[in-house]
Amino acid sequence: MVYVLEAVPNFSEGRDQELVEALAQAGRSVPGVTLLDYSADVDHNRSVFSLLGEPASLIKALLAMTGLAIEAIDMNQHQGEHPRMGALDVCPFVPLSQGQMDLACRTARVLAERLAGDFDLPVMLYGEAASRPSHRRVADIRRGEYEGLEEKLAGPDWPVDYGPQAPHPSAGMAAVGARPAMVAFNVNLATQRLEIAQAIAKKVRGSSGGLPACQALGMRLADRDLVQVSMNILDLDSLPLYRILEMVRMEAARYGVPVLETELIGLAPAQALYDAASYYLQLAGFDPKDQVLEEKLRQGLIN
Amino acid sequence: MVYVLEAVPNFSEGRDQELVEALAQAGRSVPGVTLLDYSADVDHNRSVFSLLGEPASLIKALLAMTGLAIEAIDMNQHQGEHPRMGALDVCPFVPLSQGQMDLACRTARVLAERLAGDFDLPVMLYGEAASRPSHRRVADIRRGEYEGLEEKLAGPDWPVDYGPQAPHPSAGMAAVGARPAMVAFNVNLATQRLEIAQAIAKKVRGSSGGLPACQALGMRLADRDLVQVSMNILDLDSLPLYRILEMVRMEAARYGVPVLETELIGLAPAQALYDAASYYLQLAGFDPKDQVLEEKLRQGLIN
Repeated sequence: MVYVLEAVPNFSEGRDQELVEALAQAGRSVPGVTLLDYSADVDHNRSVFSLLGEPASLIKALLAMTGLAIEAIDMNQHQGEHPRMGALDVCPFVPLSQGQMDLACRTARVLAERLAGDFDLPVMLYGEAASRPSHRRVADIRRGEYEGLEEKLAGPDWPVDYGPQAPHPSAGMAAVGARPAMVAFNVNLATQRLEIAQAIAKKVRGSSGGLPACQALGMRLADRDLVQVSMNILDLDSLPLYRILEMVRMEAARYGVPVLETELIGLAPAQALYDAASYYLQLAGFDPKDQVLEEKLRQGLIN
Repeated sequence: MVYVLEAVPNFSEGRDQELVEALAQAGRSVPGVTLLDYSADVDHNRSVFSLLGEPASLIKALLAMTGLAIEAIDMNQHQGEHPRMGALDVCPFVPLSQGQMDLACRTARVLAERLAGDFDLPVMLYGEAASRPSHRRVADIRRGEYEGLEEKLAGPDWPVDYGPQAPHPSAGMAAVGARPAMVAFNVNLATQRLEIAQAIAKKVRGSSGGLPACQALGMRLADRDLVQVSMNILDLDSLPLYRILEMVRMEAARYGVPVLETELIGLAPAQALYDAASYYLQLAGFDPKDQVLEEKLRQGLIN
């Protein structure tokens, strides 16, 4: 087994490029940690990092990064379009192999405990690691943002999981959790009619009666004279890419609109591509662990 | 870059299980070599091994295995259904990443030279490593088999690339080469009419005017009441799985026969699955190196 997780810490700094680079360096300089990707958004004033490694190495890297962030960021001065409540705003752990969600949850609890102990930071667990159903969604935990945190934590409805039951004076609060691998998947339609993309988005997304693992919006790509169904797939095991694409295609057919192309944004696990290949190629009894050279190789090298 | 190749040595022994196990052990006990798979066929009296590793480790393993084989196998006594000419009959190197065919050819030449030097064995290079066009196909090099080898090598048309211009007295000759990854891909049709599978095989295979990278036969799967187009895809870069499947589907449609399912036999490179996913999902600008988590991880760990 490969005990490797992805961690995706979000920090409330997207303008000070020097600090963003320092955060990246603090993450990648821990042995056993690979910094896959990072980006900072000036409007959001927020940066997002993708780190890979075993739990112990990841925790070491995340503590070093959070230390820097807490030192440099004052949430009382922070402005940005994206909702936020802390210097380390949110950090999910994502399992890279099937059956490792438990490991991701355990790792989230260990990080949360260390953040509370090392920085006196209040931490709520969320997602699959949530300690109660009302804590599952970051959006609920974060509602009211940094400015509303003191009042929120003073009430009875939002007990923290680790640390003090009050905001850190400059770093607010962090949400640490575990979630399945998520991908952004966009379907571009060969039409300029925005209402078609919006109608399809409404039919396929979970919030309006569609597929629970799908978030979707219809939008116009002005520079390309076409419209897009822009989606987040929250759980590729329950909603493979081929199924959501074929569902969009089916709904688009009612308007006589063809699918022009699709886009996968960011990183997807290989399994997402294997699932699509296996479905469309009609492969019987296909198991990547036994039939993909690189998967066999990986087992051979690591076992 | 990952300088890992696959080597697929074929030895002329498929009945002495003890020797087959000893060959496997000689291969896998070399550090840095992974024995992915091996199988022995009693009717063919032949065994095939799939090894992964860097060139130097692979060569060490292949020399150890060949030493055992030459000691134990007397081609003068060998009987079996499969055509053969030597104790180590054939050994291709297969690149696992794009752009490494040169490395596979160089490795083939190094192995050939060592086989000639260590065992006084005549060796012909074939496939992409062939030193002349007439040597490209193993079937041509092997025509006449072990029994015809002395006469063949005495004539002017078959110069060996390394070693003596005459058969080894008990181990015959070896063909060492390089070829692209090859996969066996079968398409099962929802009909019992063998002539339909045969007609489709004839249309898609290179030898009768179809796709050059495709070998195909129509056959009956008696225990399942259906027929199969059984194929070898010799070069997945020039002939991706989706294209051959859609071509079979198109030809089957003329008979009103649907594709029931397909089978991938043995190991395929991940790229073959990525290509199929990318085609059917209509992914624009998809590059596995940048967008598949495991590919990024592999680069991070090995670079």
